[in-house]
Amino acid sequence: MITANAQATFGPSEPFKATTIDRRDLGPRDVLIEIKYCGICHSDIHHARSEWRQEQYPLVPGHEIAGIVAEVGSEVTKFAVGDRVGVGCMVDSCGECENCRKGEEQYCLKGNTLTYADVDKYGQRTQGGYSTHIVVEEDFVLRIPEGISLDVAAPLLCAGITTYSPLRRWEAGPGKKVAVVGLGGLGHMAVKIARAMGAEVTVLSQTLRKKEDGLRLGADHYYATSDPETFEKLAGTLDLIINTVSAKIDVDAYLSLLALDGTLVNVGAPAEPLSLNVFSLLGQRRSYAGSLIGGIRETQEMLDAKHNIGAEIEVISVDKIDEAYERVLASDVRYRFVIDISTMTA
Amino acid sequence: MITANAQATFGPSEPFKATTIDRRDLGPRDVLIEIKYCGICHSDIHHARSEWRQEQYPLVPGHEIAGIVAEVGSEVTKFAVGDRVGVGCMVDSCGECENCRKGEEQYCLKGNTLTYADVDKYGQRTQGGYSTHIVVEEDFVLRIPEGISLDVAAPLLCAGITTYSPLRRWEAGPGKKVAVVGLGGLGHMAVKIARAMGAEVTVLSQTLRKKEDGLRLGADHYYATSDPETFEKLAGTLDLIINTVSAKIDVDAYLSLLALDGTLVNVGAPAEPLSLNVFSLLGQRRSYAGSLIGGIRETQEMLDAKHNIGAEIEVISVDKIDEAYERVLASDVRYRFVIDISTMTA
Repeated sequence: MITANAQATFGPSEPFKATTIDRRDLGPRDVLIEIKYCGICHSDIHHARSEWRQEQYPLVPGHEIAGIVAEVGSEVTKFAVGDRVGVGCMVDSCGECENCRKGEEQYCLKGNTLTYADVDKYGQRTQGGYSTHIVVEEDFVLRIPEGISLDVAAPLLCAGITTYSPLRRWEAGPGKKVAVVGLGGLGHMAVKIARAMGAEVTVLSQTLRKKEDGLRLGADHYYATSDPETFEKLAGTLDLIINTVSAKIDVDAYLSLLALDGTLVNVGAPAEPLSLNVFSLLGQRRSYAGSLIGGIRETQEMLDAKHNIGAEIEVISVDKIDEAYERVLASDVRYRFVIDISTMTA
Repeated sequence: MITANAQATFGPSEPFKATTIDRRDLGPRDVLIEIKYCGICHSDIHHARSEWRQEQYPLVPGHEIAGIVAEVGSEVTKFAVGDRVGVGCMVDSCGECENCRKGEEQYCLKGNTLTYADVDKYGQRTQGGYSTHIVVEEDFVLRIPEGISLDVAAPLLCAGITTYSPLRRWEAGPGKKVAVVGLGGLGHMAVKIARAMGAEVTVLSQTLRKKEDGLRLGADHYYATSDPETFEKLAGTLDLIINTVSAKIDVDAYLSLLALDGTLVNVGAPAEPLSLNVFSLLGQRRSYAGSLIGGIRETQEMLDAKHNIGAEIEVISVDKIDEAYERVLASDVRYRFVIDISTMTA
């Protein structure tokens, strides 16, 4: 066993505390990563607080991991000691089902293994990236190109790929009008990526509070959804809407913004069902879709794209995780907290 | 003015009665059609009874029209007297908007002109195909190939194109698993067309009452949706579901039948909003879409396809329209009533 330092929560309402966790000894295809940075994703908070289900504790969140390869197993071919690498939301999948064979491990039919709060094929509970080290099979390790710093790269592993994947699938690019609902951790990545793909980008945010930021990040237009005129003005004009807001929205109102064959894609979901008027879909042959992170091959493709896009981040030390969680909940972050793992002591 | 004999209803609860209606004199690009057959679409009933909105009376329904060209305007180039032709749900559109220019007149941004219960650009109320004659601009007249009889061709103009269009757009074909919800007027066309396109076809009907028919029409499989085992057995297996049922359905249950990237398409809509759990979309990157009839070019493409597919019909005389309406509402028709217009007298 390899002992790693970590920050764990010991219950749904407990603060984070320093602890140690065990990482498995390297198997032949495993990579030991010395973690340098780990992003804080909103879903970390849901898991840490057992908001989606009852979790087991202690729990170490974190699935936006960037670091350096410290050791490789005897059969590892893709990575060498010193390589700059990342790990996202998954650390394993069956590898055999139809979806895995397509490179869509996020939709593994047998259920993939999440980076934390899951159980791996060895029967061990997985623990995430708020930690000094992690051991991951090479097929689930991503290469981070030289052109991008590890701190701003970390959020690409979840927030980045979660928005890149639907932007690719629904063909954001030149001549396409793409809107992003919500300018938070995911939304700000969606704006940057859609812009880099060549689309005309509109931000739809509750207020105009972050308008200057949005335009600086690459948006061409910025509208407040609290203003009813926004929905009149943009009616029937958009080709693709990426909704990064998990809270309940008025789906019919957003669908009405789509042009012929347009698609509204949710990358998160509210806990309760939504109400949808089917006429909103019929009118212009519109679609309402969902998309979940992205596959490993696609994540590498995103990292390798010559965009050199990183997240807008605020780097924090490990003693600020609880405070950062509160600030995420208050939408008081522009736009992602990233933990500097070098501040972690036993 | 041209005087045509017709069957009209004079109020939401009135029976059909013989009457005469005026058709405009032929303009240079108009075609006068002697109507031979007209299908009875469920939407005829909604209009006749003011169920969707308050209609004006007398009202002559009918948008599944098949007949023979009786006269052409001076500039008509596509048709000649004696040609076998059809008219569907639309008789005009702006011709200039983005969607019209794409050949998607059904989504005309300025609003197309419906074959009946609408007002045309001359300010005249449109009246449908329960009538001996109709005058239509040549761009909205379809050619019916020799290989298919006019009576079984009539329902292609609405029920046919309404299902053909989404089957084409979402690429039904060899290797694709397509399900059709509901085996009625639209559903039976969807089965025939999907089969002709080479897809593996499953019917999802409330009971197994029409199973033998479904298989004869080309379905490979037939399941009862009243049996909960159907939803377990087919979970995650389908690529495309065409929902021809306008009543409220459990959308989440049907979405759960879709494989990765699968789409559920409604070709009709219930009056009230549906409830939808967004997790049903996220799980396998599924889409929920709507589709409305089809464009003129696409309708001609469907008619010209070498499938020679017609509807399964029951031909009735004009005095049986009220009775046919009751039987449609009782689902007592296999699968489309078609009025023999030769039985119409002044």
